[in-house]
Amino acid sequence: MTADDLVELRRDLHRRPEPAWREFYTTARIVEELESRFGDDLAELHVGPDAIATDHRLAVPDDAELTHALERARETGVDEGVLESLEGGYTGAVAVLEKGDGPTVGLRVDIDGLPRAESEDADHAPAAEGFRSEHEGAMHACGHDAHATIGVGVLEEIVDSDFEGTLKVFFQPAEEVIGGGKSMAKSEHIADVDYLLAAHIGLDHPTGEIVAAIDGFLAVSHLEAEFSGEPAHAGGHPEQGRNAVQAMATAVQNLYAIPRNSDGPTRINAGRVEGGSAANVIPESARILAEVRGETTELMEYMADNAERVIRSAAEMHDCEVEVELGAQAPSATSDEALATLVADAAGDVEGVERILERDELGGSEDATFLMREVQQNGGKACYVGVGTDHPGGHHTATFDVDEESIGHGVETLAGAIERVAEERP
Amino acid sequence: MTADDLVELRRDLHRRPEPAWREFYTTARIVEELESRFGDDLAELHVGPDAIATDHRLAVPDDAELTHALERARETGVDEGVLESLEGGYTGAVAVLEKGDGPTVGLRVDIDGLPRAESEDADHAPAAEGFRSEHEGAMHACGHDAHATIGVGVLEEIVDSDFEGTLKVFFQPAEEVIGGGKSMAKSEHIADVDYLLAAHIGLDHPTGEIVAAIDGFLAVSHLEAEFSGEPAHAGGHPEQGRNAVQAMATAVQNLYAIPRNSDGPTRINAGRVEGGSAANVIPESARILAEVRGETTELMEYMADNAERVIRSAAEMHDCEVEVELGAQAPSATSDEALATLVADAAGDVEGVERILERDELGGSEDATFLMREVQQNGGKACYVGVGTDHPGGHHTATFDVDEESIGHGVETLAGAIERVAEERP
Amino acid sequence: MTADDLVELRRDLHRRPEPAWREFYTTARIVEELESRFGDDLAELHVGPDAIATDHRLAVPDDAELTHALERARETGVDEGVLESLEGGYTGAVAVLEKGDGPTVGLRVDIDGLPRAESEDADHAPAAEGFRSEHEGAMHACGHDAHATIGVGVLEEIVDSDFEGTLKVFFQPAEEVIGGGKSMAKSEHIADVDYLLAAHIGLDHPTGEIVAAIDGFLAVSHLEAEFSGEPAHAGGHPEQGRNAVQAMATAVQNLYAIPRNSDGPTRINAGRVEGGSAANVIPESARILAEVRGETTELMEYMADNAERVIRSAAEMHDCEVEVELGAQAPSATSDEALATLVADAAGDVEGVERILERDELGGSEDATFLMREVQQNGGKACYVGVGTDHPGGHHTATFDVDEESIGHGVETLAGAIERVAEERP
Amino acid sequence: MTADDLVELRRDLHRRPEPAWREFYTTARIVEELESRFGDDLAELHVGPDAIATDHRLAVPDDAELTHALERARETGVDEGVLESLEGGYTGAVAVLEKGDGPTVGLRVDIDGLPRAESEDADHAPAAEGFRSEHEGAMHACGHDAHATIGVGVLEEIVDSDFEGTLKVFFQPAEEVIGGGKSMAKSEHIADVDYLLAAHIGLDHPTGEIVAAIDGFLAVSHLEAEFSGEPAHAGGHPEQGRNAVQAMATAVQNLYAIPRNSDGPTRINAGRVEGGSAANVIPESARILAEVRGETTELMEYMADNAERVIRSAAEMHDCEVEVELGAQAPSATSDEALATLVADAAGDVEGVERILERDELGGSEDATFLMREVQQNGGKACYVGVGTDHPGGHHTATFDVDEESIGHGVETLAGAIERVAEERP
Repeated sequence: MTADDLVELRRDLHRRPEPAWREFYTTARIVEELESRFGDDLAELHVGPDAIATDHRLAVPDDAELTHALERARETGVDEGVLESLEGGYTGAVAVLEKGDGPTVGLRVDIDGLPRAESEDADHAPAAEGFRSEHEGAMHACGHDAHATIGVGVLEEIVDSDFEGTLKVFFQPAEEVIGGGKSMAKSEHIADVDYLLAAHIGLDHPTGEIVAAIDGFLAVSHLEAEFSGEPAHAGGHPEQGRNAVQAMATAVQNLYAIPRNSDGPTRINAGRVEGGSAANVIPESARILAEVRGETTELMEYMADNAERVIRSAAEMHDCEVEVELGAQAPSATSDEALATLVADAAGDVEGVERILERDELGGSEDATFLMREVQQNGGKACYVGVGTDHPGGHHTATFDVDEESIGHGVETLAGAIERVAEERP
Repeated sequence: MTADDLVELRRDLHRRPEPAWREFYTTARIVEELESRFGDDLAELHVGPDAIATDHRLAVPDDAELTHALERARETGVDEGVLESLEGGYTGAVAVLEKGDGPTVGLRVDIDGLPRAESEDADHAPAAEGFRSEHEGAMHACGHDAHATIGVGVLEEIVDSDFEGTLKVFFQPAEEVIGGGKSMAKSEHIADVDYLLAAHIGLDHPTGEIVAAIDGFLAVSHLEAEFSGEPAHAGGHPEQGRNAVQAMATAVQNLYAIPRNSDGPTRINAGRVEGGSAANVIPESARILAEVRGETTELMEYMADNAERVIRSAAEMHDCEVEVELGAQAPSATSDEALATLVADAAGDVEGVERILERDELGGSEDATFLMREVQQNGGKACYVGVGTDHPGGHHTATFDVDEESIGHGVETLAGAIERVAEERP
Repeated sequence: MTADDLVELRRDLHRRPEPAWREFYTTARIVEELESRFGDDLAELHVGPDAIATDHRLAVPDDAELTHALERARETGVDEGVLESLEGGYTGAVAVLEKGDGPTVGLRVDIDGLPRAESEDADHAPAAEGFRSEHEGAMHACGHDAHATIGVGVLEEIVDSDFEGTLKVFFQPAEEVIGGGKSMAKSEHIADVDYLLAAHIGLDHPTGEIVAAIDGFLAVSHLEAEFSGEPAHAGGHPEQGRNAVQAMATAVQNLYAIPRNSDGPTRINAGRVEGGSAANVIPESARILAEVRGETTELMEYMADNAERVIRSAAEMHDCEVEVELGAQAPSATSDEALATLVADAAGDVEGVERILERDELGGSEDATFLMREVQQNGGKACYVGVGTDHPGGHHTATFDVDEESIGHGVETLAGAIERVAEERP
Repeated sequence: MTADDLVELRRDLHRRPEPAWREFYTTARIVEELESRFGDDLAELHVGPDAIATDHRLAVPDDAELTHALERARETGVDEGVLESLEGGYTGAVAVLEKGDGPTVGLRVDIDGLPRAESEDADHAPAAEGFRSEHEGAMHACGHDAHATIGVGVLEEIVDSDFEGTLKVFFQPAEEVIGGGKSMAKSEHIADVDYLLAAHIGLDHPTGEIVAAIDGFLAVSHLEAEFSGEPAHAGGHPEQGRNAVQAMATAVQNLYAIPRNSDGPTRINAGRVEGGSAANVIPESARILAEVRGETTELMEYMADNAERVIRSAAEMHDCEVEVELGAQAPSATSDEALATLVADAAGDVEGVERILERDELGGSEDATFLMREVQQNGGKACYVGVGTDHPGGHHTATFDVDEESIGHGVETLAGAIERVAEERP
């Protein structure tokens, strides 16, 4: 059963979802929680710029957005000192617990929200029970509020356990834009990690299921295109315009039509587009924010190369210019069998866990792969764990929510796994 | 030569462009100007809701935008009483000058700006001379700052002239969205107008040219489409989404491809589009703000019917819903020959006017046509006058500007025409 | 009233429609008719290569098609000597009648059919009365069967008239592909023509109407694009293909979406497309046969330039190659007033003609403009005459047909005009 | 090593490729070969309508095409009696060899060509060595000439072997259009088959490789769409047309853009399209021949449902009608392990076979699955074998060719497997 205080923490975070690099309140709240719960038990607590490799941040929003989010966080009355240290969008934290001799085990949880509005339906629990997002147009629609909470919960379990070794919990920002994983993977804190666990809630697994190892991470790359044309009066001189919205629409249609690849799954999405100014002006500018994915890096690059060609020729077709920028990227990764076995074993002891799957395919992307690969390249082992939760709406939709019962399942499974890892050093 | 005070007024208005129904500062500034210049000489001064038929406003923006614009106007220190009366987006004014027995002559000028950023180039006079737009993302890119100024200037000329009759100057809001013409045409103020003049600066005619009568107004209709689909995780479950951006892009491509019509010119423009939220979410919503035009109402309706069918089937194609709303519309209209002759005659007396064209085709749309048709249907006469001005950039582009010399040409030509009209009652 | 023998001739030609440069039977039948009717009355009769400037033919089909059509003509038993002279697709004829001193008057009629199937409906007169096309997939869907007949009829009228001068009747091939006009305009036969009349039946004018002068010929250019990609097994390796049909489809969509032009009417049509081989092969080739038109040559070129850019970037977008060829072109032209007056005068004397229009706009294209401009550039005059006819289906559709009554109207109006021209030498 | 007579047979078949249901020469030639080689050794020889379930043929071409192909076959001088029995497109054959008591083993080989032109390059062996396709626009681009040859070769091996049981060789027509498999699966000849082998050459495996069992057959469905609009003169009245080519192009673009599915691989191809008649006629008709595939029947249906919706709304968008027909379909199937083991074992004994793969994924479709499922549903076992061959060009491309050495590998491997099956009855 999930402790009431964890439920409360999760709901507080849920109420204030902050997208990538704007996790000001979130980070400050986590720091507050860690300090009040563990105080001097924590050997180290690295916050903001100290938690990440600052020059490896990806997909950082512009100053106006950062400032707006920081001001909003300030109004909550959360610790001003912490907020100051995060200024400029250096969010996240790494908590280090040292308990005697033993291996260094890392746990990575992500903490950011999504830029989408949350449902106001009476059926939607956060709306019904009063912890719906207070940030208009933002939402914890992927359960990272629960992930952050699990991070705190696991620390609490381990503090009081027989675990011998060092536990580092990485509260990672900006996962949704594939923006934070690399900066944590490149930080000094990862270098001595022998074993890394990461976790995600939901993924179409119901409450009571644990997936010991998740694989099938698609490599992913963001892609941004800015089309520039020429405005003109749409009634008076349509022929004098160079229509950036026509270019954009042509590109969108053809992006989705990039041929499927027999080497494996690929993905494409023009997730955000906009263009033009007013009905009576031939649109002079337009923009696509897209992403491509592939089962392997090669397949992702196949998509990216095709996408870029499509975009460039769509611009040319409508006599426009275009700037294409490949944005944040994440590689694929594989969970180590040895860790998976221990996770499955730990899950077996957790009350409420009724079904344990050895392995499942994600079919999505995750920048936890940066950390996993870093650890594996250093000779360590990594495993990505799935924690089932009943979620009424799909991930990233307005009615996504988690069954809070599963927070406890996650905490206990991961804590159990961490203890076993320290004992068995697989 | 244009008086310095008019140049100053024009530049002040230029500095604070306000798009449709947000002409708070603009209206208040015009009222201030009218009161300080004419005081009790004005028989009536109708402001805001008193100037228009309030239930015939079209294309009114939402409350948030109205409030934002009103607050911005407040910060300038302009008359608070006037601002209060405009609250809710009831902008514009009608000034009435009574000078003895004679016909009622109307002059209609429009006062709104456009939602587009202004050039910062050193070549762009407003930037170079310090009166560039202070409203980010808004600009007087069609010369309505000069139009409002001409309205004031004409009143000044007529006050001191031998004119006998009544002059009503209509400072009309929201022309750019075809939103204000109807509400002025349906107001009580138009009912007794015997002759109506309207004017536009530029239109590819250089400084020193006057077009006595402009015709060829295209009938126009706005068209707004809201597509609704279903979001889904773009990596994990693309097949669960119903992609509103794909629907929108398909619609855009096919809107521009509606067949040309052998009965006369038609136009289509998807001037503003947007959709989706984030790169990794299948877009659940998208929006097109478009306009269609035609030489006749039939041709405009040909385009509107086709556009609606295209949009509906694009939604269906991608399993989305769509709401299509026909927005603001304006009819076509014709300038009366009898008035045009007097305008040409008046222009002949204006210093600096070197070329007078009898007639030209606009090839665009204008909601002055609502007022023109209203007057003509009441048995009166109407004429739309072109006042040439050198404009470096095209209408609606970032480098549009007027040659201030032409403001004087406009003032004197229109004032001269108004005097002749009162005398000759053609 | 139309003479029975002319009706019979028209029906015979209707039964054997021959598209561009394949008018083998048609030419031979016309020659036969001319010889049997006029014998030595004709001063000259130029056939096939002698009638045209052979190196100015445009849009000539390939040898296989020519041979097939020639063989088909042979089977009818028509004069083998004539057919032999036409071999290689040199069709058409020029008949010269000399009747004393006087000006040289030209009459141009076109003789080719269209590559489209004819209706089999019982409502369709040619089907009901047994003279439907016997050439599968070809049809006289634009009345050129009637035009050729009118040419013969006019000669007959003039032979027996008081006309003094020379009459040349140009039986022109390949009008539908804009392929024959230039080769007749560049032939020696046009050089001494002082006055040129050309005529078209129908054009949405009912039986009993004559349009004395038709203008508004759109300049036109054909455009052919051949896309080349790479085939691949559509199931096994879709990513190895370079899909020419995708390129073609993208091009088609964007061709129709080339911006309308405020300088005047434009047109575009991708009238024939094809691509790919089998369902399970990624299409390696595709082809578009298109045309662009404009009120002026500049407007036509505006369309052609845009079309070429669209096509090239569509190919690039799908990693294909493309060859774009601008094909046959025709200029615009204007009918001379002086001739129009005489035509109107002549029409006034024709029984059954109830309405005479001075002028109308075609809104289409015609390679008669080559001949008209040639004569006008030589100091002569030209006029294009419309002969109304009730046509159940539109031009170029499966149910197009002419009211045979109108053949007589055409013959008499044109013959009358020719006599008047010789007399009045306007 | 492949026997010279088999090479000769393969080349003769290669020279006269006949697409689906037009395998007149091919069938007659195979019959000739079987009779001359085995004569009375064959217990039964079922030809044409006797070899298949005649009412289960799919994707049969029209009479004109059948007649043309039959006439062409007649000109070769092949047995007229056989040809007559095939009239109407009832092609294929089943040869039955009875050799004492034992199980009934089936071998299925396909015999049809593809409607695509063959390379004339000097590098292309059939061109260089004089056995390039003599049928313009048709080609054995998928190795079915070799398959038919292997069928004959295996019979020869088995005739002289110790095999005890019954061997049935199915020479199946119309595989490329998924048209023949069902009609053979539904014939009486399959009912008593205990074990079925099928084989394909190439598939990106080089000479010397044998794949004992191929799986991953994608379920497939053909899809044909006929768009009907309204023709109009493209210059005179474009607005009167209803453009079927625009509808088709919109459909093509959006077909390829059907969302990828996270449940498994899908495919779509608009492999053959055409539309319109002439450049100056708004196209009144257009046609798409497409196919969809999926790893499972559900995935194939996901594609088919989406494709149908795309096509219908594309028609509606352009005010056209459309008829959509789902054509030939084939299910997926799985090779039985027990047979695969025997195939691998047999391959181990074949000279020249250097690498044996247990299993591979096809990633394409095959209507052999109809026969495989039929046998499996009757309690039998089936296995699809891959015979490696160096092929310079990909399957279905102009330069596809087989290394004739591999024909021998196929013959010996399959014959060896058949003997083992009879012995071991797995």
